[in-house]
Amino acid sequence: MMNGEEKWVVGIDIGGTAIKLAFIRPQGEMIYKWEIETNHLNHGEEIPNCIAKEIEKKRLELGLIKGKILAVGAGAPGSVDVVTGIVNEAINLRWSHRYPLQQKLEDACQLPVVIDNDANCAALGEMWQGAGISSRNLVFVTIGTGIGSGIIINGHIVHGAGGAAGEIGHVTVIPVGGALCNCGKMGCLETVASATGIVRQATALVSEASASDDGLSTLYKQNGVFSARDIFELAKTGDYKANTVVQTSLSHLGIALANVANTLNPETIVIGGGVSRAGDFLLSQLNLIFHQHAFQSVKETTVLTLASKGNDAGVLGAAWLAKQQYM
Amino acid sequence: MMNGEEKWVVGIDIGGTAIKLAFIRPQGEMIYKWEIETNHLNHGEEIPNCIAKEIEKKRLELGLIKGKILAVGAGAPGSVDVVTGIVNEAINLRWSHRYPLQQKLEDACQLPVVIDNDANCAALGEMWQGAGISSRNLVFVTIGTGIGSGIIINGHIVHGAGGAAGEIGHVTVIPVGGALCNCGKMGCLETVASATGIVRQATALVSEASASDDGLSTLYKQNGVFSARDIFELAKTGDYKANTVVQTSLSHLGIALANVANTLNPETIVIGGGVSRAGDFLLSQLNLIFHQHAFQSVKETTVLTLASKGNDAGVLGAAWLAKQQYM
Repeated sequence: MMNGEEKWVVGIDIGGTAIKLAFIRPQGEMIYKWEIETNHLNHGEEIPNCIAKEIEKKRLELGLIKGKILAVGAGAPGSVDVVTGIVNEAINLRWSHRYPLQQKLEDACQLPVVIDNDANCAALGEMWQGAGISSRNLVFVTIGTGIGSGIIINGHIVHGAGGAAGEIGHVTVIPVGGALCNCGKMGCLETVASATGIVRQATALVSEASASDDGLSTLYKQNGVFSARDIFELAKTGDYKANTVVQTSLSHLGIALANVANTLNPETIVIGGGVSRAGDFLLSQLNLIFHQHAFQSVKETTVLTLASKGNDAGVLGAAWLAKQQYM
Repeated sequence: MMNGEEKWVVGIDIGGTAIKLAFIRPQGEMIYKWEIETNHLNHGEEIPNCIAKEIEKKRLELGLIKGKILAVGAGAPGSVDVVTGIVNEAINLRWSHRYPLQQKLEDACQLPVVIDNDANCAALGEMWQGAGISSRNLVFVTIGTGIGSGIIINGHIVHGAGGAAGEIGHVTVIPVGGALCNCGKMGCLETVASATGIVRQATALVSEASASDDGLSTLYKQNGVFSARDIFELAKTGDYKANTVVQTSLSHLGIALANVANTLNPETIVIGGGVSRAGDFLLSQLNLIFHQHAFQSVKETTVLTLASKGNDAGVLGAAWLAKQQYM
């Protein structure tokens, strides 16, 4: 330990499959990170204790004094009321409606705890140590099975009146005739630009013309299924149908992001999540559409970029919250 | 004077035709308000002196001691850099590019000055004393010749990286085949939902079928021109064509506002400007579309409402800025 006085915080990212944990220095350096399987027993009631045990185990393993760890920050997948520390709804976990996560973690860990939504934590992580470093205004959009986002204005997460700010996945992009979204609306961005949306459109396209021997149809005939990643890979090789799907998705995504930028003019819009692994191929095409639809002074000052902290963004941002609140 | 110790601030709203001024108490009560014609002489260089003279004249008229007025807040139409106090561009005034309004007003008035964009000031005015009272998160949208907006998050105006936040008038609502906007883009909200946009669409509709004797066509034949107000009035009487135009406009506006709400989930979205005078007719139709496109928890917590401070919102908000900064 270089400085006997330095305190650390713990960043936690609670997911439906795994819980990520990290001991993090005040400057943002991750000292130790590890993950455990999410314990779904007893309606997820074991989770706070599992986390507390992990922190304690790691502390002893490293020979740290008890006071070394100052506080815990945790991100949870779902709608979080940051004022009360309650998770209103977390579909991928089995917690009861309105689960008092902050209190449960404080009781289990005997440490001060702060919680927020996982996308918000990832946004903070990218602002603190990632692609949005030095941005005070940042929009983080994570594109995977669904589309989530975290919005930071003047260095603080925007939660909104009902904790529902950042539902960029549910902006309407197809006002008439769009597909039904999980949220109950029609034509949401998520229905066309998430991994699920991309696969849905590709499946519709190959089903239309089963006799075709293009790359996308061939892949579908071979496997009976494909992933968004497959579709991007095919698009990169120039496959016409795969490109049609990718173009449609990126067109809706690019306009939606330009409209967010026209509204908020953040320094940075950071794209993360599984779909962002399509990398520069995605970013360059997205930038073309974004620049077409962003207001002149917005396009001069808002930059689209890919996330750089990957799966670490969530624990970093959660740790940042703990640091801000308790250090 | 009820309290000899109480200080007042001056709120100013600089427009292309008139400059509005008001002496305002710390609680937001407007004591005196008046307006003067905008002096365009000498490339608008006379404006700061005109304002200073008006304040001094009114102060003497009321027999107030010099120290009674603590500070000045001013809203200007255009892109304002609030950090440097410079108006980058104000098309309706004749100021040079990058006009140092704050410094010029401070020199002329010998008082501390704070400036911001006029729509931002109106947003603050509606938050402080108007339709958004008690909201900490509020979006103000003013619909007149153009569409402007001011966004307040956690009680503070969002300016964005390049001072271009709030360009809701320039979100793309018609991705393909939209009309050319003044900003150089195509299919902006302003092209369909501003007064100008409404008239443009109505004109196109009556020009298509000149033989028709519906209300809208008849009005056009009589006068060779109509206003957005005429079109709303006709729509209220049930005129089919006028309703078609109004429906199209409100549909785009309602979706755009729902998307802003899905992004920011403010307590209140306040609709002001000339078009908002269509009142409940506008609001009820807009609400239908808004509720169709707002995410469930957003529609439960974000309220659409009409502005209540009308032309006073700008001076009130400017005064609020002066109060916040200097009181």
